[in-house]
Amino acid sequence: MVENKLNQGNFTLPGEAGYEELTLDLAKKWGADAIRDSDGTVLSEKITSTGFDIYSTICLVRIDNQWARANMDKLQQNYLMSSPVIAEGDTVTIDPLSGFFREQFKVNANDDPNKWWQVFDRTTSEEVPAALWSYDAKKEIVTIKNAKKWHKYTVNFLAYRIWEAISMYNHITNDWGDRDHLMPIDPIYPQTQEFILDYLGKWLKEHPKTKIVRCTSMFYNFAWFWGDDPDLRFTYADWGSYEMTVSPRAMEMFAKAKGYELTSEDFVNNGQYCSSHNVPSARLLDWMDFMNEFVVTFGRKCIDKIHAADKKAYMFYDDHWVGTEPYSDRFKDFEFDGLIKCVFNAFEARLCAGVKGVKTKELRLHPYLFPTGLKGEPTFMEGGDPALDAKRFWVNIRRGLLCEPVDRIGLGGYLHLVEKFPDFVETVTQITAEFRALGEFHKNDKPYTAPVKTAVLTAWGKLRSWVYVGHFIPGVELYELTESLAGLPVDVTFLSFDDILKNGIPKDIQVILNAGRVNSAWVGGEHWKNEKIIEAITAWVANGGGFIGVGEPSACIHSSQYFQLSNILGLDRETGQTCGKPKRKYTTVNQKHFILEDIERDLDLGDDIDDIYIINKDTQVLTDKDNSPRIAVHKFGKGRSVYLSGYKFTPQNTRLLHRSLCWAAACEDSFKPWTCSNINTECAYYPKSKKLVVVNSSDDRQETKVFDSKGSSISVSMDPHGIEIINA
Amino acid sequence: MVENKLNQGNFTLPGEAGYEELTLDLAKKWGADAIRDSDGTVLSEKITSTGFDIYSTICLVRIDNQWARANMDKLQQNYLMSSPVIAEGDTVTIDPLSGFFREQFKVNANDDPNKWWQVFDRTTSEEVPAALWSYDAKKEIVTIKNAKKWHKYTVNFLAYRIWEAISMYNHITNDWGDRDHLMPIDPIYPQTQEFILDYLGKWLKEHPKTKIVRCTSMFYNFAWFWGDDPDLRFTYADWGSYEMTVSPRAMEMFAKAKGYELTSEDFVNNGQYCSSHNVPSARLLDWMDFMNEFVVTFGRKCIDKIHAADKKAYMFYDDHWVGTEPYSDRFKDFEFDGLIKCVFNAFEARLCAGVKGVKTKELRLHPYLFPTGLKGEPTFMEGGDPALDAKRFWVNIRRGLLCEPVDRIGLGGYLHLVEKFPDFVETVTQITAEFRALGEFHKNDKPYTAPVKTAVLTAWGKLRSWVYVGHFIPGVELYELTESLAGLPVDVTFLSFDDILKNGIPKDIQVILNAGRVNSAWVGGEHWKNEKIIEAITAWVANGGGFIGVGEPSACIHSSQYFQLSNILGLDRETGQTCGKPKRKYTTVNQKHFILEDIERDLDLGDDIDDIYIINKDTQVLTDKDNSPRIAVHKFGKGRSVYLSGYKFTPQNTRLLHRSLCWAAACEDSFKPWTCSNINTECAYYPKSKKLVVVNSSDDRQETKVFDSKGSSISVSMDPHGIEIINA
Repeated sequence: MVENKLNQGNFTLPGEAGYEELTLDLAKKWGADAIRDSDGTVLSEKITSTGFDIYSTICLVRIDNQWARANMDKLQQNYLMSSPVIAEGDTVTIDPLSGFFREQFKVNANDDPNKWWQVFDRTTSEEVPAALWSYDAKKEIVTIKNAKKWHKYTVNFLAYRIWEAISMYNHITNDWGDRDHLMPIDPIYPQTQEFILDYLGKWLKEHPKTKIVRCTSMFYNFAWFWGDDPDLRFTYADWGSYEMTVSPRAMEMFAKAKGYELTSEDFVNNGQYCSSHNVPSARLLDWMDFMNEFVVTFGRKCIDKIHAADKKAYMFYDDHWVGTEPYSDRFKDFEFDGLIKCVFNAFEARLCAGVKGVKTKELRLHPYLFPTGLKGEPTFMEGGDPALDAKRFWVNIRRGLLCEPVDRIGLGGYLHLVEKFPDFVETVTQITAEFRALGEFHKNDKPYTAPVKTAVLTAWGKLRSWVYVGHFIPGVELYELTESLAGLPVDVTFLSFDDILKNGIPKDIQVILNAGRVNSAWVGGEHWKNEKIIEAITAWVANGGGFIGVGEPSACIHSSQYFQLSNILGLDRETGQTCGKPKRKYTTVNQKHFILEDIERDLDLGDDIDDIYIINKDTQVLTDKDNSPRIAVHKFGKGRSVYLSGYKFTPQNTRLLHRSLCWAAACEDSFKPWTCSNINTECAYYPKSKKLVVVNSSDDRQETKVFDSKGSSISVSMDPHGIEIINA
Repeated sequence: MVENKLNQGNFTLPGEAGYEELTLDLAKKWGADAIRDSDGTVLSEKITSTGFDIYSTICLVRIDNQWARANMDKLQQNYLMSSPVIAEGDTVTIDPLSGFFREQFKVNANDDPNKWWQVFDRTTSEEVPAALWSYDAKKEIVTIKNAKKWHKYTVNFLAYRIWEAISMYNHITNDWGDRDHLMPIDPIYPQTQEFILDYLGKWLKEHPKTKIVRCTSMFYNFAWFWGDDPDLRFTYADWGSYEMTVSPRAMEMFAKAKGYELTSEDFVNNGQYCSSHNVPSARLLDWMDFMNEFVVTFGRKCIDKIHAADKKAYMFYDDHWVGTEPYSDRFKDFEFDGLIKCVFNAFEARLCAGVKGVKTKELRLHPYLFPTGLKGEPTFMEGGDPALDAKRFWVNIRRGLLCEPVDRIGLGGYLHLVEKFPDFVETVTQITAEFRALGEFHKNDKPYTAPVKTAVLTAWGKLRSWVYVGHFIPGVELYELTESLAGLPVDVTFLSFDDILKNGIPKDIQVILNAGRVNSAWVGGEHWKNEKIIEAITAWVANGGGFIGVGEPSACIHSSQYFQLSNILGLDRETGQTCGKPKRKYTTVNQKHFILEDIERDLDLGDDIDDIYIINKDTQVLTDKDNSPRIAVHKFGKGRSVYLSGYKFTPQNTRLLHRSLCWAAACEDSFKPWTCSNINTECAYYPKSKKLVVVNSSDDRQETKVFDSKGSSISVSMDPHGIEIINA
């Protein structure tokens, strides 16, 4: 329990007209210095006139449906791949929108289909020449001639979005009935830009009390395509992808800027679209760069207007964040004053904390003050336990905040809902106290880290630091690992293959981590065919670097090995191509290896990879299952590798990862200082203030010892979800 | 229990000098009409003069080590890929034989290495120009210049085999000490051919009592490369592959015959060699055709000599069978009189039974009369139970023999070992009686089959009917399925993709079965990219055909689908490329579907495939696990498909397969006649003799009912491993 000495500031409260007394009471109790409106609530004069900083939200692409309705040719659009149709004769007809949610999409027949669309024979993967198909805009039907019987045909076509995705989601989820369907307008057109800037100017004047304009966010939402079938409501969703930025105008601007043209198939990509899970092509990265430049350039004009009105501009790092790229070098050019991220867990906290080029970073905590949670579970209604929910979210987020600070926290939603949950009110009071205490320790200080700077190597690198594709997706190895990493006392950075090609492996890196499945962006796909990558990493490990591979590290169907770094790992995977080659026998190492020292329960590495075989005599198999090594270590030159067949975010695996990092970096001695004996507890040590912060992220009481830098230990007894601050 | 009325004939006994009385006693008891020698035993005059047919073994490529020693340049050879070496500088030296068993191999430096070998950079997969490497025959070292640091290099090189593989195995397994290492000579040279024919002529004269010359087998053993490390004794083994047929002379002859040259890499193939599990290239198939022609042509000369000596020629369908291809159209041209197959299970019995162009087919039953079994377990020694072993092998083999007959059975090994096991003697007596009874029913008759002629579609087709790659390999889906198929009352044929391209799908097929993992020869690899294949199968199913897919049927990384027949199956597999695409919800069908009617225990489909999702509304999911359909059915046009996520040979799954076949062929009504109610029992009905044969393949007593063609049922009570013959 942290004493609530610092009981004021850095907290944003959702106010609610009609509940003025409650608003002001809780503002005092939680030490709020800012009050915000939410989607569905307004602030009354009584609230806005009390001296708090006032946050007001604005979403610049869904501001005025009347204008949108008058400019339907300037709505945002995207490419869709039609549902496939099997030819049963030599003529095939396809209704492009069949299967899609017609309230979200409308076919764009304004831009010549024969120029902008493509038809594919997906049996052969070949494009059907434009001369062989036509679109009847009245019937909304594509007719393909000379079709090959029994082949599968699809149409890549442009569709306007006639219902903005987030608004559509809220509308449908909250039963907003006949409320107007807001339409997203596309700032790619000069007329739209002019309209937005005008509107923003007026809006700023109409909001004199507003100190902080919370932009939700800039212009383009992450991709979210809906279907008309309730059993397949979402047909494509990716928090990080650019499908919704497309328009013929943007594509023409791209061609001028980059010197070559993209096609619909660059975005449709065999119907897989450009999911962040997949390795981005150079063409896609060019598009992202182009859109990022556009969004920053026009976004800056909007922010300049906000600043000119003597207000601050904060960006909500969700929803329409696509194109803003907070981890790009260009992000600082927006000149945003603040960044707000809604967070569930540690790596999302780190995502926000790690952004450069913005002064104030704020977390929007869960649970939101809504009757039901994101999955429809009761929260602020009968059967809900919002205090426990809040604690459980907080202990995860707190792990991240031990390592790296943000400036503010806050809540969202309908404030009146907390009235029936006094324990929730107390929990938030405690959270604000803990948050403010941690903030003090971070001031001019940095917590102790072991000399194990770790680079997570993916096809995305820095651009998709920490969060990758939205929230935590259980089962994706790299997500699970990153959640562990986000709270460990090690420095973490994110590296792409292009970074290595351009600048080599940074001098300050001790461990490279590569995790996931073959052909995923997380492992790297065909980047592993690049000899320069193999040379760089092999040389680096030979000279003492550490490599941790999880799942199918460096996997690529290429040449005589599947794991392209099999020599470093000392093992490879049988994928059915070498069934005739018996595998080397091994005995699992009996004595406790350093990386397994704290492992007491059975290991659970999730849905892990099997059919692993060792290729070197000196590969040490630490554990196996079904004749397949699950954890193995290997030395290569002066360097070391650790292989884990899978990963799941658990206290035990977090400890396994921590030890693996220290072992791979050959600095086992650095492991013990400021580490807890009990794996359910973790700690951070702030050297300048000599404060040791110990946390218990579990639902149970825990007894633990913390080892200091001299080898002595400090015993600590911890409440469930507890925190202890010790002078050490 | 079958009465031993037919107590004479069609049985081959292994005789043993020194145990003449035992030999003759057992010959009488088991009704032997032939006596054979074995590896390690001889027949005495007393045995050979008693009027039995005498079998004598000869292996034509290891007949005279003296001649071999004088003709070391005519030993058999093969390409090996050296162990990889990582360049640590710009010069790399490789000892080609490093890691290989030097008692098996000797580098061939007679044929110009720079012409016949290849060096590869396995990091880039590119060949190193011959000008950049050289071989020092004295030091036995390849030196590569201008190497790229940290790249992986390997040498494809020719090695003579200085110890014949089967002989080496027997020598080492049986501790033959300083007995000479027999070397395999290569009949590709005219001198070798001349020597073999001369030797054979003499040998025939020296064996006047021999009636049957058992060739072991022709000239080339299946591939079996040994390593020098006891932890990696076998580095490559494949019962069906042609690596051991290679020589520069053969390659030159091939180039003349086929009009193009092969390279070492055609055989080394990234170190994967040409495993039968992998899809054969057109070049490999050309080589197999070329070698088959050679083996048949020269083999026929040997057989002509045997016939001229008034003896019969039988081929042992194991060991040096490579190049003979009993399922090729050319096999009949050998004019073999008999074929002997050693068998463990049903599909091996069918393998032998199904060969065309040879009159007499004989099975060599297990266990062999050796002290220990193939895996070193006790058999004819303390702790062994050879009677139970024999019963368990026999009940599996018997399933195959219910469907299709062979002519003879027999044993091998040291006869005296049975003296201490009278129950084994009784078991064999019973087996001979059962075998002879079944033989009678097959005479001029064919057991009832449901109208479900099934084509197993693989990249090999007919050439690898039934056995695929040697014996049963647990876990390989198609092996497990084929073992079930081998005893089911359905006709089975084997189809390749080339067969479909040449002749279409045969008119008499009702069901096509495709089973296994992506990129395996069993599923078909890139054949699934061929639009003609998709067209043919899709049209066929649309017109009423049945398709059963198991594991990853029709899988190929190509275009917008992973299962190229996803439209037929109504489902596909998520391989990580479409993580952004949510999957269609489904509900598992509650009422018992026809194919699940006899399934009472939990299904065990082995190590099956997950991440399956349905793509059609009308795909019926019958069972699922971890949100992945395991059994699903779908209708396409007039046809039907069944998907099974995996397969394991069990009584329950055999029943599931039987029902799936009938359902896919839309002839559910044909399922019940001559089917047993108890899945642990099976039956065959021979219409001409009106004999119903019911078998119990389990270790337990079973009660069962058999349904006849009129819908009546016959109750049968069965002993463990029992057989009942009923007039029906």
